[in-house]
Amino acid sequence: MRGNSFGKLFSFVTFGESHGPAYGVVIDGVPSGLIFSLSDLQKCLDRRAPGKIAGTTSRNEADQAEVLSGIFEGKTLGTPIAVLVRNTNQKSEDYDKLKTENRPGHADETTLFKFGIRDHRGSGRASGRETLCRVIAGYFASLLLSEVKVKAFVSKIGPFVYSGVPDDLEKNFAPYSFPNLNETDNIKNFLVDLQKKGDSIGGKVLLVIDKVPKGLGEPVYDKLKADLAKAMMSIGAVTSFSYGLGEQFSEFYGSEVSNNRDNFGGIEGGISNGQRILITLTFKPTSTIGEKAKEGRHDPCIIPRAIPVVEAMAKVVLADHLLRQNAYR
Amino acid sequence: MRGNSFGKLFSFVTFGESHGPAYGVVIDGVPSGLIFSLSDLQKCLDRRAPGKIAGTTSRNEADQAEVLSGIFEGKTLGTPIAVLVRNTNQKSEDYDKLKTENRPGHADETTLFKFGIRDHRGSGRASGRETLCRVIAGYFASLLLSEVKVKAFVSKIGPFVYSGVPDDLEKNFAPYSFPNLNETDNIKNFLVDLQKKGDSIGGKVLLVIDKVPKGLGEPVYDKLKADLAKAMMSIGAVTSFSYGLGEQFSEFYGSEVSNNRDNFGGIEGGISNGQRILITLTFKPTSTIGEKAKEGRHDPCIIPRAIPVVEAMAKVVLADHLLRQNAYR
Amino acid sequence: MRGNSFGKLFSFVTFGESHGPAYGVVIDGVPSGLIFSLSDLQKCLDRRAPGKIAGTTSRNEADQAEVLSGIFEGKTLGTPIAVLVRNTNQKSEDYDKLKTENRPGHADETTLFKFGIRDHRGSGRASGRETLCRVIAGYFASLLLSEVKVKAFVSKIGPFVYSGVPDDLEKNFAPYSFPNLNETDNIKNFLVDLQKKGDSIGGKVLLVIDKVPKGLGEPVYDKLKADLAKAMMSIGAVTSFSYGLGEQFSEFYGSEVSNNRDNFGGIEGGISNGQRILITLTFKPTSTIGEKAKEGRHDPCIIPRAIPVVEAMAKVVLADHLLRQNAYR
Amino acid sequence: MRGNSFGKLFSFVTFGESHGPAYGVVIDGVPSGLIFSLSDLQKCLDRRAPGKIAGTTSRNEADQAEVLSGIFEGKTLGTPIAVLVRNTNQKSEDYDKLKTENRPGHADETTLFKFGIRDHRGSGRASGRETLCRVIAGYFASLLLSEVKVKAFVSKIGPFVYSGVPDDLEKNFAPYSFPNLNETDNIKNFLVDLQKKGDSIGGKVLLVIDKVPKGLGEPVYDKLKADLAKAMMSIGAVTSFSYGLGEQFSEFYGSEVSNNRDNFGGIEGGISNGQRILITLTFKPTSTIGEKAKEGRHDPCIIPRAIPVVEAMAKVVLADHLLRQNAYR
Repeated sequence: MRGNSFGKLFSFVTFGESHGPAYGVVIDGVPSGLIFSLSDLQKCLDRRAPGKIAGTTSRNEADQAEVLSGIFEGKTLGTPIAVLVRNTNQKSEDYDKLKTENRPGHADETTLFKFGIRDHRGSGRASGRETLCRVIAGYFASLLLSEVKVKAFVSKIGPFVYSGVPDDLEKNFAPYSFPNLNETDNIKNFLVDLQKKGDSIGGKVLLVIDKVPKGLGEPVYDKLKADLAKAMMSIGAVTSFSYGLGEQFSEFYGSEVSNNRDNFGGIEGGISNGQRILITLTFKPTSTIGEKAKEGRHDPCIIPRAIPVVEAMAKVVLADHLLRQNAYR
Repeated sequence: MRGNSFGKLFSFVTFGESHGPAYGVVIDGVPSGLIFSLSDLQKCLDRRAPGKIAGTTSRNEADQAEVLSGIFEGKTLGTPIAVLVRNTNQKSEDYDKLKTENRPGHADETTLFKFGIRDHRGSGRASGRETLCRVIAGYFASLLLSEVKVKAFVSKIGPFVYSGVPDDLEKNFAPYSFPNLNETDNIKNFLVDLQKKGDSIGGKVLLVIDKVPKGLGEPVYDKLKADLAKAMMSIGAVTSFSYGLGEQFSEFYGSEVSNNRDNFGGIEGGISNGQRILITLTFKPTSTIGEKAKEGRHDPCIIPRAIPVVEAMAKVVLADHLLRQNAYR
Repeated sequence: MRGNSFGKLFSFVTFGESHGPAYGVVIDGVPSGLIFSLSDLQKCLDRRAPGKIAGTTSRNEADQAEVLSGIFEGKTLGTPIAVLVRNTNQKSEDYDKLKTENRPGHADETTLFKFGIRDHRGSGRASGRETLCRVIAGYFASLLLSEVKVKAFVSKIGPFVYSGVPDDLEKNFAPYSFPNLNETDNIKNFLVDLQKKGDSIGGKVLLVIDKVPKGLGEPVYDKLKADLAKAMMSIGAVTSFSYGLGEQFSEFYGSEVSNNRDNFGGIEGGISNGQRILITLTFKPTSTIGEKAKEGRHDPCIIPRAIPVVEAMAKVVLADHLLRQNAYR
Repeated sequence: MRGNSFGKLFSFVTFGESHGPAYGVVIDGVPSGLIFSLSDLQKCLDRRAPGKIAGTTSRNEADQAEVLSGIFEGKTLGTPIAVLVRNTNQKSEDYDKLKTENRPGHADETTLFKFGIRDHRGSGRASGRETLCRVIAGYFASLLLSEVKVKAFVSKIGPFVYSGVPDDLEKNFAPYSFPNLNETDNIKNFLVDLQKKGDSIGGKVLLVIDKVPKGLGEPVYDKLKADLAKAMMSIGAVTSFSYGLGEQFSEFYGSEVSNNRDNFGGIEGGISNGQRILITLTFKPTSTIGEKAKEGRHDPCIIPRAIPVVEAMAKVVLADHLLRQNAYR
């Protein structure tokens, strides 16, 4: 009830603070008999891990996954799956100043007010590092979604904008997940430059879901669009969510859009219709700027590292709704 | 688990189909000893009721609330509060054609696929008429929020756009909730004209929440922005949600926005900071167009009647988080 | 969260106070396409209704069910099913004395303390009349359990004791549900005599569940025995729950019982093993005694009328676990 | 939804299998600012740990608690608290025979049927070792219950019976928690003898709760007695639950019991009335008997080691209801 869990039938709880001993996630609701691969799980974590992309944080944490339960001889047991990731690169001394300082846009002040206590060594529970737990949950969700393709892309980062949907969803757009690879060096230079200046930048992400089973989502409060919105808006830096034509719908007459099922982003009446789901998210610039940011342990733009998190949150929503739909068949 | 309920501590479930005998809501979690007024409740329902605003549906339903439980001698008992509204103006014959027809943008096809059965006399459970239950829940939520101001406005409807926030949140902008009252006649003519053509239009809504207690929202998955997003995206016609600078954040450098707490829309780290909360929603054009729409029993634009629904959903989220925060004090 | 709902996938909420306008139940989670019969539902209610068994309350309430939603052309829609029963035989004046009196064993004092307000005209929310809602929910649960037999019997009422399990579970042991029909007149005389004296008596109920699907129940906290215990102990007058050899297990060596699966009452490791489930409940004497009880509007023994309630609660637990098991297949 | 979590506002999920790497618990809902003591927590675990009481299992596991999150400078942060206990004394080879053998009274067969897969090296998720997680949760619950006394005693173990309630609840009745210390040696000899024979024995436990706040428990489905019943019946070996006069109520006339509040075991109308709560549980004999049991790694009677588990489960129920009651004040 303190909001550290997500999902109903595919449900998980996460724990950990940025400067505590470890992060972890316990997933209750993974069906039994699914094939597990530790190296696949680790690959998911590595995509999100810091220290790997030029122009993002230089903090280097291995984020090594240790599976504590729920797996036996390479298969899921149907029991809770617990995965642990130790914190290895904390520098508490960095944060001494923060003992008395509350940063705008951060959770510092609201956390202290709400709980009356705060681990001032970092963002504590509000740290973006918690998203590694989401990526782990997303890996296990993907075991239920073998047919479904869930892909996110950077559609805007600073002055770089990509319109439309990439033809080939499988193509690797690393390291920035920007579908125009010609811009990779420019983006890199832009971000490195930002970092030097101690500044940051916002952007947009496009999420594409293909081959989603028809019939997911519940008619009234747990519409698929509502649960996806909650999932995405629970990511710290996300400030807007839209699906289908999204904000553009305010510009249209019904006669222009309502006779074509394609405009509804794969969701009608809150329920997936089997077509492609399209979602757009806005990310705000990271709030750590100035001298602190110049030290390089912060991301001038969180979006490239947020891509696997967005995909993971989409997967846990879909897996949850898939199990919900199963229940009533 | 079929998604007909909302909230955790202030929780409610709704029932009813557009062509069944009645709609109703059962609210579990209203504290005891609060003063109840049937006429206040009825006023809330009347704001949403059809047949009252030129250029919206001509269906005329009294939407008379009957309280079945939870109130004794004008006060809440702390027991579940059930409120019933009978359906009185159904015309099933209108819908005979729909037995075989599935309207794009409607829930017709997805409902039939998901459940294998559908009440073809109307939109059934997917009907916008369900929102009267939300308005009832919102009334009871408001009993817990005596200090808080929750106000929604139409910020765009067709060519009519209002930028910024009205100075006086208490001012009555009826019937269209558009803060520039000089445009009232123009909006009326625009909608009446649309209705004649059998067309519809989308738009935008601005939601303003003032004097919200500091500390509401939970740090990770149940961030206030996430729960508000879910609440709003659970409204049928809503296609985008943003808070604070919203989509504009993608245009900014951190140096431009991160040193001013005002840009974060009253929510930092997912928790209310006591400042004004600002939310923007997009509504798509209503999906019923053409001959059907010309008959006048459908709204060419749902937004004016959606205003009390948006306010109600905000209130139930705030009431729920208020009780959650109480629990741990 | 105020405890008026039950179940996770087959879930329902009930509302109503004994001297309010009505009782009702909203069931969310009944699969679509099941055949509904209003007369079957009414028969379930009639078994529980007051005024029909000599030696029980003389209050006569029709308990007429009105279905408000969720049914279309005789089938379940998969939407919430709401059923309403109006209160028709309240005599508030009976209870004027209770305004200042708190009866031991009743909820009067604890309710007033907890909520700070109480409908003193009767037991309010704590009234046994709420169990009619459970019977309604049980009817809908039975639609999912066509193969399963759920039968409860009076195994002890005052000096009348029946040991063992009746051979024929289908046999009608009305009106007292006591499997030795030769005692019917004696029980009747015993209860009528008790009523005259203004006294009451406790007793025991045996619940037998046959042909329950194997595999229901979850291994740790939601063991089938745990959820059945909660369901039964949520009935006001129930003071003990046991399954299989129950209390007798304390008398046995493992060598006497652990090599025979029959002793474990159909549940091993918290999960149904496909064998007969046997549960025993104790009911306390009704708490209304003395002058009040002599007026005849109270039951000297609640057990005969509790039989359909016990069966209903077993059914809702089984239906819920059946759907939960479905979800993960 | 797979039943590995417990509680609503004070909620926790546990993970781990008997032959996996570790057990753990994540508690979400511990208020912030409470004083934490690792040595107190470890003492709770030590009371339950195996290998310490003559006549119980000779398996020796340190059960060392490692706190992974939620604690900062000796206080709770209000964030999820994760505690890990590594498994250190597994002997998988002991269990090779069990690959094909399903033991009556164990979860072996039902688990295999339900999940289609089972960790045959031991009882897996169904192992009593999971109860160490409950003891950890109980420790944190006790931080909220500083005034409340929760004490369990062995009231029957084989031929040894203790009637009534000990005068001094604080007295240490270790190692067998049997309130007549004169019998300690006799119990020891009895259990050692049983172990040599490869046999086991059932028994009874008395749970006493003093100074419980008035007003805990919700009127209908979440009655305090219902939630306590679920908590206790979720313990593997428990086969009956009763409160107050319990089964004896079936022997009494209302005139004998209903005028004295003392007979209702501290709970009226499902709500605590501030008086002493009395609960009795039956435990079945452990199911592992014969050659396997003679090896000494199994308990001939689980009850002495179950005492801290019973206390812990009572505490988590009380803490949960305390927070629930807080929420609505």
